[in-house]
Amino acid sequence: MSQNYKVAIAYDGTNYGGWQIQPNTISIQAVLENVLRIILRQEISLIGSGRTDAGVHALNQVAHFRYSATIDIPRFLYSLNALIPPDIRVRSMQPVDDSFHAQYSAISKTYRYHLWLEPVQDPFQRLYSWHIRRPLDLDALEEACSYLVGTHDFTSFANEAHSGSAAKDPVRTMFNASLHRQEGCAYLEFTANGFLYKMVRNIVGTLVEVAGDQRRPADIPYLLASKDRRLAGQAAPALGLFLVRVIYTRAAPTQLLPL
Amino acid sequence: MSQNYKVAIAYDGTNYGGWQIQPNTISIQAVLENVLRIILRQEISLIGSGRTDAGVHALNQVAHFRYSATIDIPRFLYSLNALIPPDIRVRSMQPVDDSFHAQYSAISKTYRYHLWLEPVQDPFQRLYSWHIRRPLDLDALEEACSYLVGTHDFTSFANEAHSGSAAKDPVRTMFNASLHRQEGCAYLEFTANGFLYKMVRNIVGTLVEVAGDQRRPADIPYLLASKDRRLAGQAAPALGLFLVRVIYTRAAPTQLLPL
Repeated sequence: MSQNYKVAIAYDGTNYGGWQIQPNTISIQAVLENVLRIILRQEISLIGSGRTDAGVHALNQVAHFRYSATIDIPRFLYSLNALIPPDIRVRSMQPVDDSFHAQYSAISKTYRYHLWLEPVQDPFQRLYSWHIRRPLDLDALEEACSYLVGTHDFTSFANEAHSGSAAKDPVRTMFNASLHRQEGCAYLEFTANGFLYKMVRNIVGTLVEVAGDQRRPADIPYLLASKDRRLAGQAAPALGLFLVRVIYTRAAPTQLLPL
Repeated sequence: MSQNYKVAIAYDGTNYGGWQIQPNTISIQAVLENVLRIILRQEISLIGSGRTDAGVHALNQVAHFRYSATIDIPRFLYSLNALIPPDIRVRSMQPVDDSFHAQYSAISKTYRYHLWLEPVQDPFQRLYSWHIRRPLDLDALEEACSYLVGTHDFTSFANEAHSGSAAKDPVRTMFNASLHRQEGCAYLEFTANGFLYKMVRNIVGTLVEVAGDQRRPADIPYLLASKDRRLAGQAAPALGLFLVRVIYTRAAPTQLLPL
């Protein structure tokens, strides 16, 4: 008999080699599993909704783990947050059905990518946005976004995963791809039923080439149709990327601890 | 013949021992003077509007320096920002009258202090706000603020300066002391014709004691009248404090490079 628990986690990815445990780097998953083992006195396997790369941030990464006894959640969250570094915070936790799986039960994920567009970077945004000094045509970028929405084979925007995992179906449905303009900056938001490896960063790099007049917005459908990674643009740097939301079907509504 | 220049500087103070050059620590002033000397090929003395402590941030610190020749400002700012670390940015620069002095010509300064008031800290605010987990009575805090406005002897809220500088007049005029409530957080804003050493942090620490029901709002006038630092509260930590604005009398209006 064991109980399944769902947690929501925010992290500043600057100092980590990504979400997933890997050799020769400190991962967010490893930091959390180590402290979970100390508090719960058993090996805990924490399964995330998906990996985030080195330097990528999360406002709400979701993960699940099983534990053999009942947990006093408020006390446990207090201890957990006291023992992990301050750049990782566990925002909420709830018991969930055995069937809940942070990766396989997810029906959509949302990522945001922040661009800093003024000549001088805000020093407080230096680790959280890509500073682009040359003028960008944001209308062209917005038009290019519109071609990404819908069900497509995203092979052109996917890197080969490090792990030798079996080739996955590269078809994904993009529910939303939108540009949000702010004073001196902007962010892109992408919601899809799933993302291929480095897909958001490859898309953003390509969109910025469109906005910099190196490609046309109408090139996007041709890029998608080509299924050739070499034809798309360079990946945008990791630091501007945030995992902001993971949506599940039948999971109980999550009561987030307000940040 | 030399020209006087005014600069506006933003910095994340996390990694510095404060604005002012001191032994055994890296100061923002030292970083800037070193690069100014390299670019301008002469010793440059950069005078700030005042010191900020180790860990204190600035959105607009103002400083001045003299140089023996004319400077091509856009090119110079580009080079300067390329050579200093990304947690310091020079936002603007303009030639000013010989009479302009970043410290002595200032007629007011504004500081903000950020409080994080939810049970779980936002990991992205961990270096920029004081996390207070216990419940605070913000109405009491706001009432306490009101007693600070006006012309007072602020000795009770001033630490002895490190340097053996001559005792200064401890009377200052507080033009504004206000609380700004936001979702899950709040900030305090103080505008005065000048601030004594550690005055803002000592005031904030004392105000938080009022909000935590350890003192009453009406204690503030008695604290001011006592002129005894030992009676006021503990200093708030440096990391929540931002120098946001310095106002000058006759200086030409500054065209800030938008961040």
